[in-house]
Amino acid sequence: MSLIVQKYGGTSVGSPERIRAVAERVGEAQSAGHQVVVVVSAMSGETDRLIKLARQVSPYPSDRELDMLLATGEQASIALLAMALHERGLEAKSFAAHQVRIVTDSVHTRARILHIEDQRIRQELERGRVVIVAGFQGVDENQEITTLGRGGSDTSGVALAAALKAEYCEIFTDVDGVYTADPRIVPEAKKMQSISYDEMLELAGLGAKVLQIRSVEFAMKYGVRVHVRSSMNHEEGTWVLKEDASMEKVMVRGVTSNTNEAKIIIKGVPDKPGLAALIFGEIAKANISVDMIVQNVSEDGKTDITFTVPKTDSHKAMEVINDKIVSEHDVAAVKCDDKIAKLSVVGVGMRSHSGIAAQMFQALAAVGINIMMISTSEIAISCVIDVKFSELGVRVLHETFELGK
Amino acid sequence: MSLIVQKYGGTSVGSPERIRAVAERVGEAQSAGHQVVVVVSAMSGETDRLIKLARQVSPYPSDRELDMLLATGEQASIALLAMALHERGLEAKSFAAHQVRIVTDSVHTRARILHIEDQRIRQELERGRVVIVAGFQGVDENQEITTLGRGGSDTSGVALAAALKAEYCEIFTDVDGVYTADPRIVPEAKKMQSISYDEMLELAGLGAKVLQIRSVEFAMKYGVRVHVRSSMNHEEGTWVLKEDASMEKVMVRGVTSNTNEAKIIIKGVPDKPGLAALIFGEIAKANISVDMIVQNVSEDGKTDITFTVPKTDSHKAMEVINDKIVSEHDVAAVKCDDKIAKLSVVGVGMRSHSGIAAQMFQALAAVGINIMMISTSEIAISCVIDVKFSELGVRVLHETFELGK
Repeated sequence: MSLIVQKYGGTSVGSPERIRAVAERVGEAQSAGHQVVVVVSAMSGETDRLIKLARQVSPYPSDRELDMLLATGEQASIALLAMALHERGLEAKSFAAHQVRIVTDSVHTRARILHIEDQRIRQELERGRVVIVAGFQGVDENQEITTLGRGGSDTSGVALAAALKAEYCEIFTDVDGVYTADPRIVPEAKKMQSISYDEMLELAGLGAKVLQIRSVEFAMKYGVRVHVRSSMNHEEGTWVLKEDASMEKVMVRGVTSNTNEAKIIIKGVPDKPGLAALIFGEIAKANISVDMIVQNVSEDGKTDITFTVPKTDSHKAMEVINDKIVSEHDVAAVKCDDKIAKLSVVGVGMRSHSGIAAQMFQALAAVGINIMMISTSEIAISCVIDVKFSELGVRVLHETFELGK
Repeated sequence: MSLIVQKYGGTSVGSPERIRAVAERVGEAQSAGHQVVVVVSAMSGETDRLIKLARQVSPYPSDRELDMLLATGEQASIALLAMALHERGLEAKSFAAHQVRIVTDSVHTRARILHIEDQRIRQELERGRVVIVAGFQGVDENQEITTLGRGGSDTSGVALAAALKAEYCEIFTDVDGVYTADPRIVPEAKKMQSISYDEMLELAGLGAKVLQIRSVEFAMKYGVRVHVRSSMNHEEGTWVLKEDASMEKVMVRGVTSNTNEAKIIIKGVPDKPGLAALIFGEIAKANISVDMIVQNVSEDGKTDITFTVPKTDSHKAMEVINDKIVSEHDVAAVKCDDKIAKLSVVGVGMRSHSGIAAQMFQALAAVGINIMMISTSEIAISCVIDVKFSELGVRVLHETFELGK
């Protein structure tokens, strides 16, 4: 008998009706001969409701207490799903993370899973029960309740699949799978049958919101086969798998655009050793993560440094630079531009094929899109462009690399 | 430095504003030099909201999963109160029952506390922190989440006070204390300064809703001094204490009426050994608790048996009797009357004073109230009367025993 893990997101358990539909789906999997472990998120809207309540009490609530509060959302969902399964005549038991011991580090609001004890779960499965585990939450060595960050239930699901050596992990969500581009922008975008861990990691990092990036890291590390699919229909979704030879034949697998970053330009920076380290050191101290960095060739002993940060942190980043850099060093000007988009193409085939970058730049130039910044990884190329060309850029690249075929 | 336990009910933490008010009150207690452990209920309305959600998924949810669901209500409250305390600059930490280990038996939805581990709480108190503990919930030896039944947070508070050997336990509620009668019925009713455990137990059992009965049992067993008071003002409330000599001087301390019972009369029961045992055996099997029982003197080998049950169980009780007794034994008739009230007077002074019963019956007769059933305990006398005389009866007895003075 094979063991599978199913993870249902907040929309999939968003109402009593939806919870009953999930129970039906879980029942189908059990009838098909699987042992089933189910991971659920909080009902959609619940986490936001709790955060709002917290903010009414305290504008900046402590991370520990926020975790204590938010963990209730998933605990309610698991109990309700267990009731719905009982209603269908299935044996089922729900467990909070501290009960099955999903042990994490102690970094509240974005804890990392260290290990999972599988004993209790296996006992219940062997008794023929469906085991329902609260996603998103964990417990540290000191019995403190932690959470894994937004989208953390994906990680709970994949980590449980890894710990239980499940045959695969199904991630049920409100989209049909992973597409070659956002279908709202490119109507011809195609659902991928499969995608490699590396590609999925790049896509998740570049703005595709299908899976939490950490869940993909986990899947890759432990070789968990992940099936991303819709809870609203029975269509096959997209499998996230280990790279194989056939995948390398595809040079570009998908196109993304990310409009959540802002570009900061520091002009006329004295070209002396250590200044770049100082700038990005101060930014890091403020807990702001920098994405792309470009430094131009020096001219007259001065250079320009441009980098991107999440839009939500751009204000803070400007403050840090004005306070710590501009005021104490001979810098000409600092400017922030949040009207940008980062356009990316991803594909493991790029490792062995050259010329993708040139093809991308030509395609953009042909429709008059100016490229402001470029960065590349082994399997992705990204360009920063004016945000007004964002959709056009995605469509052009999707066509250029023939992803609709 | 003395240690106190404060318990706040659902109304006291019913909104972000009320939670902030509780934080202020906790701060006052700490400023006054106390180590403070706070027990809170779920925000008012929250438990009902969760139960409604459960019923939408399953009409008869399993007790285990109901506990899993309902325990989230208190977990949210403790986190929010901790945030409110931080906001006032106080150090505070919240704990779910499984974290401080409020260990109960495994009877879901009405578990009993077996023991409490005080180590973690003491550690935090010694660091100068306010410790906030979720009321109503517990954990059994198998890490299963349990709840203590409606009003269970009172018991959590008193049990914690006992385990920590607290100086006293303050129960904050939406009334000012314990009154000689319900002030809505008797405007001259007086708030008692103090009341003995025995009297409070009787009053709680007879329908006074100020404290959960089990919390009083706990207080009595461990000698916990309990102060029932309002969270809306700073008035002294009522102390629930060990009986002392001055208390015995008061013959009647309070009057209650309970309109939540129904009376069942079985007429013409053959007067043979074992039939009463059979009747009440069947009732007990149906999990219905019987309050008063009266059996008349036998006449012609037949007798009448009258007893009272909670109104909510009267329908089920009638079914049981019709199915198991009437159909198989030679019984004349069964009748149910739910238009009754149980009027009671309570006072430890009755132990050493006689004549209270006679005085009570005379007073009721003087205003034309007919008594249907009578039962007595060492410190209480109860009469069942027609429900329409319920308020009149309370007023008459309150005046007769001069409780307004």
